[in-house]
Amino acid sequence: MTNTLYLPELREMLAENNAAELREFCTALHPARTAEFMEGLTAEEAWAVLLHAETPLRVEIFGFFDDDKQVEIVEKIGREEIASLVAELPHDDRVDLLAEADDAVVDELMPLIPEEERRDIQRLSRYPDETAGAVMTSDFARLSEDWNVSQAIDEIRRQSEDLETIYYLYVVDEEDHLRGLISFRQLISAMGKPDKKIGDLMERDLVTVNAMDDQEEVADMVARFDLLAIPVVDDEHRLVGIITHDDVIDVVREEAVEDAYRIAAVAPLEAGYLETHLLTLTWKRGIWLTILFFGALLTATTLDNYRTNLDEIKWLVLFIPLVVSTGGNTGNQSATLIITALKAGNIRLRDWWRVVWREMLMGILLGGVLGMVGFGVGWLLITPFSFYAATAIPATILLVVIFGTLCGALMPLLFHRMGLDPAMMSNAFVAGVIDVAGILIYMRVVISMGLTHS
Amino acid sequence: MTNTLYLPELREMLAENNAAELREFCTALHPARTAEFMEGLTAEEAWAVLLHAETPLRVEIFGFFDDDKQVEIVEKIGREEIASLVAELPHDDRVDLLAEADDAVVDELMPLIPEEERRDIQRLSRYPDETAGAVMTSDFARLSEDWNVSQAIDEIRRQSEDLETIYYLYVVDEEDHLRGLISFRQLISAMGKPDKKIGDLMERDLVTVNAMDDQEEVADMVARFDLLAIPVVDDEHRLVGIITHDDVIDVVREEAVEDAYRIAAVAPLEAGYLETHLLTLTWKRGIWLTILFFGALLTATTLDNYRTNLDEIKWLVLFIPLVVSTGGNTGNQSATLIITALKAGNIRLRDWWRVVWREMLMGILLGGVLGMVGFGVGWLLITPFSFYAATAIPATILLVVIFGTLCGALMPLLFHRMGLDPAMMSNAFVAGVIDVAGILIYMRVVISMGLTHS
Repeated sequence: MTNTLYLPELREMLAENNAAELREFCTALHPARTAEFMEGLTAEEAWAVLLHAETPLRVEIFGFFDDDKQVEIVEKIGREEIASLVAELPHDDRVDLLAEADDAVVDELMPLIPEEERRDIQRLSRYPDETAGAVMTSDFARLSEDWNVSQAIDEIRRQSEDLETIYYLYVVDEEDHLRGLISFRQLISAMGKPDKKIGDLMERDLVTVNAMDDQEEVADMVARFDLLAIPVVDDEHRLVGIITHDDVIDVVREEAVEDAYRIAAVAPLEAGYLETHLLTLTWKRGIWLTILFFGALLTATTLDNYRTNLDEIKWLVLFIPLVVSTGGNTGNQSATLIITALKAGNIRLRDWWRVVWREMLMGILLGGVLGMVGFGVGWLLITPFSFYAATAIPATILLVVIFGTLCGALMPLLFHRMGLDPAMMSNAFVAGVIDVAGILIYMRVVISMGLTHS
Repeated sequence: MTNTLYLPELREMLAENNAAELREFCTALHPARTAEFMEGLTAEEAWAVLLHAETPLRVEIFGFFDDDKQVEIVEKIGREEIASLVAELPHDDRVDLLAEADDAVVDELMPLIPEEERRDIQRLSRYPDETAGAVMTSDFARLSEDWNVSQAIDEIRRQSEDLETIYYLYVVDEEDHLRGLISFRQLISAMGKPDKKIGDLMERDLVTVNAMDDQEEVADMVARFDLLAIPVVDDEHRLVGIITHDDVIDVVREEAVEDAYRIAAVAPLEAGYLETHLLTLTWKRGIWLTILFFGALLTATTLDNYRTNLDEIKWLVLFIPLVVSTGGNTGNQSATLIITALKAGNIRLRDWWRVVWREMLMGILLGGVLGMVGFGVGWLLITPFSFYAATAIPATILLVVIFGTLCGALMPLLFHRMGLDPAMMSNAFVAGVIDVAGILIYMRVVISMGLTHS
């Protein structure tokens, strides 16, 4: 999806070294759009264009390149130049970038980065993936309680360019313990009283997360409290970073995709579908598919036990896939409903009996209706037709659907209870259990109705 | 999940009409937490507590009550009091609130709301659900190009309390046409030049959405451009509202849940799992389950065509559920991968041949491995064992897995091509198609190997 509209013009400007037009190109559009028009350029060409933008804008446009292009530029352009770019990048983004770049290149770059920035990079890269610490940035505004309003505004104006956001200002003591928060809006409202102390204006009841908290919990908090940014503290309540709204949106999207993968029994991918190596993707699908396949083998061995029954009543086999897939579909619905409700905080573990009750009632209603349809089909396919024998179909479907709703609802709850991600209780897994159970139910119904002798 | 920790104290304060302590309760904590502690109160009690908070705080705490509690308060408290609350609520939230409240109550309330606010409510409520217009708010800051920096700052300080955000300021002409944007940060950096005109400072290349655009597109734009808020314009490029970061997070979460439901073949719910009426939920599952059931009936009629073959080779039946569920699982994986990649913008329609190629290769690899396992099981279950006959199992599994990957990948692409939501191509639907195809493939393999005579 490369935008090639401006590529010829851009290359011409570069060939002519037309500084005025290149500068105009860099400044005229929103940086994200500028980045988009540069997608087709090589790393060297893109860098040559970026040199015509002033540092803050260069950093911004660079930030909108996709990850691969960023890494390519870092690896291909002169180390000195890149080191000064990295020193200016948002603190969270540069950690991610260096993690993806070639280790040899990073080893050469690091000594060229100013010491303070280098320490910051090392500190941020220590947090494990998917924790608050791994998502946070360290370029936030710090105020002291003792400052007054006009001092604070001056200080923020001075630092503004280096900060990821100036809209939430964090108040810390000398040891960086988080004391309070004042929004820029509150600061502006207080401009009329320039001598008022920050300590008297700030909010003290803060919503914080710990650096080791899961990024999903962070997103939940930000969504629940409608925050622009959330402060991240360590175990001693020292402010170590903040996570801003844009990163939270990325986390929410990432987690949604991960959940979707888990539900479909694919191990989460680190990159996009087309960017992931075919063998990696095959492996991430294959491990689950193989586990599920071994589960499905149980259907074959289960059926093997009922060979004589299947042989005795020829029409039994016709309804096996129907019974199995109806149970699976019902179970998938229940599992997805419960997984999403758990994630959204709509249900808690202690609601389990309400869930069971509701699923059972729904199972009876859904199974009843589908069973009647099934009976109609039995009428057409069962030869010779026997009214008594045909009732085996609706009876089986009713029981399988009830089993499907209960099993689909309880398995994610059970996983949640065990402290695991309920989405791990993938639909395919639920369906696998129901497949085997469906066959067992079907055969037990037929045998207990005396249609066949086991 | 009601927090009952403070309930006795709160009720005691109310009984004693202890104004000082009630005011302290309202102001001490983050409004979201205050709201949480009030969850167990009745509508009347909650309102009595809120009366001790000043209007802006009262509005904020009220906004953190869950929807049901908000509606209950609106319906049960005196119309006059509620009308003045509604006049102060964020413009987007009050539209949602009134849409959920009893129509008779709303009819009584509306004449009591100041005319300007009433018109705003009527205007915002006209946009269809899930459009940008339905999510946007109309309380944003408007500036004129001709103002200078100090005028603009004064104006914003004056309006600040009534605005949803003051951090992005929109520049419009007399007819409200959107001309530009200036962030509060830029305004603050320019404080040193108080006479500078807004028109000279503002950005002109703006990212906008149309009021009728789908909320999902809005979320994509905000995520891509890392915005704090996005302006919403009408067909004449007049600024009609803005959508802020917190609403975007809600949209992203809502859409993720909707996609998960679609993938599991449940029609999207308007409320949480436990809040949705049992019959509504049964209906939303039942319609899809019934459609899928009719699809699954094809498996029975298909098998009916091969009755003689099934009769001839007894072991054939054992592998039917295995073949069917392996195909279904593979198809689900592919469908989910393609749906999420389409949604994330990782693949486009024109990549379809790359998708087909990758899925085919993965199908061969996955099918090959699973086929080998299947052959081993055949060895155990096929009696009398024949090496030649047993190869029917791996051959079938290989073909079914390849069919599953291709079908799972192409069906969402096809839906996307037709302008429909690819998530509509639910996994259950894909699995349904693969079920029938799986049986056909199995039987054709067996027949073409000459194991049985059709």
